[in-house]
Amino acid sequence: MKKIDDSFFQHSSVAIAGASSEYNIGHAFVQCMQDSGFQGTVYPLNPAGGEIRGLKVYRSITDIPGQVDYVISCIPARFTPQLVKDSAAKGAKIVSFFTAGYSETGRQEGRGLEVELLRVARAGGVRLLGPNCLGLYCPQIGLSFASDFPKEKGNVGFIGQSGGNAIYLIRAAGQRGVRFSKAISYGNACDVDECDLLEYFITDDETRIVAAYIEGVRDGRRFLRVLRRLSAIKPVIILKGGYTRGGAVAASSHTGSLAGANESWKGLLNQTGAIRVYNLDELADMLVTFSYLAPPPGRRAVICGSNGGFSVLTADDYIHAGFDLPQLAPKEQQEIYEQVARFSSTDAGMILRNPFDITNIPSPEGQYTIMRSLAASERFDMLVAQVSISNSGWPFVESPFRFWPDMFLDALLRVHREVDKPVAAVLHSITNTGEFERLVLLRQKCQAAGLPIYDSIPRAALAMDRFLLYHEKRKS
Amino acid sequence: MKKIDDSFFQHSSVAIAGASSEYNIGHAFVQCMQDSGFQGTVYPLNPAGGEIRGLKVYRSITDIPGQVDYVISCIPARFTPQLVKDSAAKGAKIVSFFTAGYSETGRQEGRGLEVELLRVARAGGVRLLGPNCLGLYCPQIGLSFASDFPKEKGNVGFIGQSGGNAIYLIRAAGQRGVRFSKAISYGNACDVDECDLLEYFITDDETRIVAAYIEGVRDGRRFLRVLRRLSAIKPVIILKGGYTRGGAVAASSHTGSLAGANESWKGLLNQTGAIRVYNLDELADMLVTFSYLAPPPGRRAVICGSNGGFSVLTADDYIHAGFDLPQLAPKEQQEIYEQVARFSSTDAGMILRNPFDITNIPSPEGQYTIMRSLAASERFDMLVAQVSISNSGWPFVESPFRFWPDMFLDALLRVHREVDKPVAAVLHSITNTGEFERLVLLRQKCQAAGLPIYDSIPRAALAMDRFLLYHEKRKS
Repeated sequence: MKKIDDSFFQHSSVAIAGASSEYNIGHAFVQCMQDSGFQGTVYPLNPAGGEIRGLKVYRSITDIPGQVDYVISCIPARFTPQLVKDSAAKGAKIVSFFTAGYSETGRQEGRGLEVELLRVARAGGVRLLGPNCLGLYCPQIGLSFASDFPKEKGNVGFIGQSGGNAIYLIRAAGQRGVRFSKAISYGNACDVDECDLLEYFITDDETRIVAAYIEGVRDGRRFLRVLRRLSAIKPVIILKGGYTRGGAVAASSHTGSLAGANESWKGLLNQTGAIRVYNLDELADMLVTFSYLAPPPGRRAVICGSNGGFSVLTADDYIHAGFDLPQLAPKEQQEIYEQVARFSSTDAGMILRNPFDITNIPSPEGQYTIMRSLAASERFDMLVAQVSISNSGWPFVESPFRFWPDMFLDALLRVHREVDKPVAAVLHSITNTGEFERLVLLRQKCQAAGLPIYDSIPRAALAMDRFLLYHEKRKS
Repeated sequence: MKKIDDSFFQHSSVAIAGASSEYNIGHAFVQCMQDSGFQGTVYPLNPAGGEIRGLKVYRSITDIPGQVDYVISCIPARFTPQLVKDSAAKGAKIVSFFTAGYSETGRQEGRGLEVELLRVARAGGVRLLGPNCLGLYCPQIGLSFASDFPKEKGNVGFIGQSGGNAIYLIRAAGQRGVRFSKAISYGNACDVDECDLLEYFITDDETRIVAAYIEGVRDGRRFLRVLRRLSAIKPVIILKGGYTRGGAVAASSHTGSLAGANESWKGLLNQTGAIRVYNLDELADMLVTFSYLAPPPGRRAVICGSNGGFSVLTADDYIHAGFDLPQLAPKEQQEIYEQVARFSSTDAGMILRNPFDITNIPSPEGQYTIMRSLAASERFDMLVAQVSISNSGWPFVESPFRFWPDMFLDALLRVHREVDKPVAAVLHSITNTGEFERLVLLRQKCQAAGLPIYDSIPRAALAMDRFLLYHEKRKS
């Protein structure tokens, strides 16, 4: 059996079994390859023949004249052993199964089919992804399982036992600037499993950060071994699905996984130094952090942002997450007052201590001057900027304060360019579509400057704490 | 000094000091009253006279011919003692201060001004809100501090020491169907404080649920006494800002509050049965829950929704939050399989145990039939429905599955109408503006049916746990 290597992610042709001219999942995969700019050839397969989206439909994989590297199965489970046999005969490297109805059903018939798939695959020398999965996302060659995934490649490698979770994660993290080297939805893992894939990431130079959504592991010892080696050289973030008894039942019905006791997982992740998260948003937060935050030398944060109440809550969240919020020395504090006085007739309605609420400084130059002083101060290891999007619309659209977030971000980005200190931007508090549109524009500004972007203050504090813990552990 | 009673929320005229014809905060308050449909008379005040938004501007409050009930100060702090004096002379009931620059500055001058305000107010028999606040939101009479707050009144009473936080909370909870009897942004609390306002809510028949964002309390004993009486008859949810040392520093700079030790707050809230939350989203979640969720008789939940991976994570979150997810008896389970077989040629790609993932049942009738059976089962005390908005767009727009959430919600709402069992709807996972627009439409459907709506699975589980704890405590 061939080990997973680069060739499993380099395909010049894809066959999609079960594509029809009307909309169905196979048809969707065909369109998805076209939308994603797949650089190789796409072969729709259907016993009915004909044409789909301008492509000739082959009745069987064996009818295809050229080479077939990657096969996606969207046909009923009972027909899949034959498909694997034919794919192997054709020299395919992988067959991936959107098809479900195997061991996850808990029924003898489904389990038997899965065993049969594996037998046929081994005999023919082809590897299987899934079943019950979405397969490969390799932006470098335009291979994808959703038309709107980022087209650019990056350095995050993701593996996940749920296709739906993978879709959300890639979209959500993608909107915040995270880019992937490859992502693999691997479902029931009857053949290629988490160990094979994580082991591959050890030597994959394109992958610098690794993330996984795992419901169950078959070979605990191997997993420990692989995870230890991988974690030693790359950050690994793991979302363990089914860590409770009820979740384990769900995992077993979802991917036929044996979820394992939470205590064992705790021990295992502690031993390896992998970072554990508890939901997909926390996972996206970690990917954003590892992709864009420079590791601060310590935990002394200065917080700047909009609105007194949010400043108080941000201070609580960051202190609670183990950060320090040092104050300036009296002389430095006096300088800040003097700077504010240059730009504003009064300091009323501002907080001019850490956390700084400089909402009421009316000019970008003023915001820049103060944030630059703070960022440059040796009292702080990092700058956390927080903007309440909803509040910037107060009290209504004619208010010049509606441009406050833009002004503030321009000042922040200028500081970021000039001062060599880690900066995080928390763009939070969205209540309506207009505010969401605004968030998207503000994110784009931050993203262009390479800033890590967070949606929520407590989640930002949590992610930054986990990031610092990771680096602190490695230093000690 | 007059006690806070209904008359403090019933005003037939508002004077706004410091309104100018160009945009400023005073001008914004004038517009806000017009946009909110204030039923009384609005008097802009400015020494320059003239006209603002079609309204005659008075040079001084004493020039106003009629009665003035409520005065909003947007003038510099040094002029405010005279304004209070004049307001008292005019017979106003309350002066509310947007104006800041008092005790929160930490400077002698600011502290002195605040003391002076109070002295003048007591002498003249007028009560003060703030300073450093946004004042009153009373939808019943169209009094508001943001033009886009809900126009309809409800039964949530809110008090908050941060105007910005109040704006976000009212907008965010408002978008999820929460309606307010009155909300009070009360800033530094130099006169009217949290005790006065919470005491008022004890007897206010319009207020059934109480929420508070509090940074500090001056009279701890009175607070305990009032909170105990209020909590005994109405649910009270408290967000304590400044519970960490760093947060306390921020609170002192924000509203001049003495934040108090977290341990004292823990004890105090435990003694009274008030519910503590840690951020504004959790606060909004509790308001949604108390407004719309019928108290389930126990903790046995059945989860239905979209996507296997999210089902696993939902199960984890609900088990972690102390819920049970019982399974059906074999006979009942068999019935579910048979029902599924009536509507779908295969059960592949579904989870037909609790949590149920019925994504692949192609008809509303099928979804309805299965959810109805589950909701009607005596094994469950409540139904939690979860929809991943992002995933319903998979794999792309032509997919009939893009209508899945609508189909699912129609089925859910039909079940909700027919079966008398508490139902919660978690509409989660938004990655772009299109998905947010969709969320808004789906929320409207749920809201029209009186369903509690949550944005996130873990936050829904947490809120429902707190809600159940509240009811469990009161039963015992």
